[in-house]
Amino acid sequence: MRPFVPALFLLLAGSGGAVAVDWQALPTQAPAPADNPTTPAKVELGKMLYFDPRLSSTGNISCFSCHNVMEGGDDHRPTSIGVHGQLGGRNSPTVWNAAFQSVQFWDGRAASLEDQAKGPIVNPVEMGMPKIELAIERIQRIPGYVPYFQRAFGKDAAISADTVAMAIAAYERTLITPDSPYDRFVKGDKKALSAQQQRGMQAFAEVGCNACHSGPNFSGPSLPTGSGFFMKFPTHIQNPYVSRYRLLDDGGKAVRTGKVEDQNFWRVPTLRNLTYTAPYLHNGLVKSLPEAVRVMAATQLDKTLSEAQVADIAAFLEGLSGEFPQQTMPRLPPTPGDMLE
Amino acid sequence: MRPFVPALFLLLAGSGGAVAVDWQALPTQAPAPADNPTTPAKVELGKMLYFDPRLSSTGNISCFSCHNVMEGGDDHRPTSIGVHGQLGGRNSPTVWNAAFQSVQFWDGRAASLEDQAKGPIVNPVEMGMPKIELAIERIQRIPGYVPYFQRAFGKDAAISADTVAMAIAAYERTLITPDSPYDRFVKGDKKALSAQQQRGMQAFAEVGCNACHSGPNFSGPSLPTGSGFFMKFPTHIQNPYVSRYRLLDDGGKAVRTGKVEDQNFWRVPTLRNLTYTAPYLHNGLVKSLPEAVRVMAATQLDKTLSEAQVADIAAFLEGLSGEFPQQTMPRLPPTPGDMLE
Repeated sequence: MRPFVPALFLLLAGSGGAVAVDWQALPTQAPAPADNPTTPAKVELGKMLYFDPRLSSTGNISCFSCHNVMEGGDDHRPTSIGVHGQLGGRNSPTVWNAAFQSVQFWDGRAASLEDQAKGPIVNPVEMGMPKIELAIERIQRIPGYVPYFQRAFGKDAAISADTVAMAIAAYERTLITPDSPYDRFVKGDKKALSAQQQRGMQAFAEVGCNACHSGPNFSGPSLPTGSGFFMKFPTHIQNPYVSRYRLLDDGGKAVRTGKVEDQNFWRVPTLRNLTYTAPYLHNGLVKSLPEAVRVMAATQLDKTLSEAQVADIAAFLEGLSGEFPQQTMPRLPPTPGDMLE
Repeated sequence: MRPFVPALFLLLAGSGGAVAVDWQALPTQAPAPADNPTTPAKVELGKMLYFDPRLSSTGNISCFSCHNVMEGGDDHRPTSIGVHGQLGGRNSPTVWNAAFQSVQFWDGRAASLEDQAKGPIVNPVEMGMPKIELAIERIQRIPGYVPYFQRAFGKDAAISADTVAMAIAAYERTLITPDSPYDRFVKGDKKALSAQQQRGMQAFAEVGCNACHSGPNFSGPSLPTGSGFFMKFPTHIQNPYVSRYRLLDDGGKAVRTGKVEDQNFWRVPTLRNLTYTAPYLHNGLVKSLPEAVRVMAATQLDKTLSEAQVADIAAFLEGLSGEFPQQTMPRLPPTPGDMLE
């Protein structure tokens, strides 16, 4: 069921004529699948696992390492660093509001947060476990985890890849930022966005950014889990940005599907919390928000914006950064000496 | 000034005769130097910096990476992993109760927590900054930090290596575990330690462990900052452990001083929270607590303990693990796009 979402229909009268936009605030709760309802016990366990570096082969990389929930939900690097100092190939997507995406990863290869959680554990350049079972065995060998699994999944709870992933996903569904200036503006606080931000909001729509970056998460329409909202990027290649930022180097969705029609297709990412998530794009090669606006206008809309438009749109986008949740740190159970290799 | 410490003088009558031991509980506040009193604003800033990976060259290693305050204050690895996947040479000492040590690092090369905090930032295999000034410049370029420095150090506060280190040290002085079963026992709760743990407490004293591991932190007497309490390890080498655990490979204090008389001298580490800090010793080669007890009895006291004594002493040592503080996560200010290389 779609939660109630306060929305604001604005008729924006700009130079390009009137544009009707369905501006939606972010729901204050993320949707959860029927077979994994969000419960406090699951969230507590999931937070512990999210921060537990023992899920990595070297014992020093956790979900948190690349998705820092004390900052942007990412790692402010072009691409991430995994076990043995290895570099990943794509920019770490923010975990903030990932719960509102209908597929996960830049190429949409995971249908759900549950599926996603298992991926990095066995990625050789991320957490580097040869098999997911070895990661689960680590957790099984830590007696202090047992009561947490029991509270989350019942007395006979299995410590399995599924329960680990379900708990992490449940925790991630709490990692949302529904109180940005934009959300307050849409809900009626007309002073929440500055005059420049309101101009930027209008320009955002007039220029056509919201053709893709629509919906409450600015990542496209709210679709059923697993659907995915993909766009070709870059669409227009007659501009200096394609070579400058090597936008054709990575085939995106086609790299995993092998299909020509998926070449350079990407999941449309959220525009929320960009203030915290520089550098930008799938390869992290664009450093500043105004430059990201220029690149996207040229490559996706074949438009060269005025510097005033760029500044206004960037200011509006800054208004999509919401204060992120104040959280307590988990307390991880100790490693038994006999578990150490 | 030394804070009031509840103490318990116990006359232990064992097989080796009566042993009078001054059992001291951990103070509930750590001492702070006169020029860096612990204040809430400093602690708040220090926590942010402690968790900020931007202090490392690669932007992915923070103090927290190797001194995990969600677990044992260390990293449950034999030796730590720094930037570019490099291995350090010694086991990460726990940050829990480091405030009660009169010198820092295994070889005691830092006189204070303030001095210590600057070390790993510029260690090429830890946080890897070529110069401390470059790390400070990073922090200076993050506008969101300014109000925190002003609150901690006054309106004209400099963002400098000194203020960064002072804040981190102030935070670390809050990282103490004064409520272990042992502490409750010493304060009068006679049920806080089990019968086996109480036997272990007696054996600990009779065997002579407290010759070095004395005082409230079991790391030697409370000495003025910078003094250091060092012991030769191993003292006795006619036992199988010296070669098995390569105890002579690392010269300890002599490696930094170059002095023969410092060969194999080490700062006496705390015995608190060993439940959380396996593996053990400066090289992290001993995996279990009972084995650590055997090794230390043989190498330092030239004694072979009975397995019952080993089990009792290990049980007592487990009683030195105190619940660690429940903390809120810091919220780190965002990285401006123009700061990214």
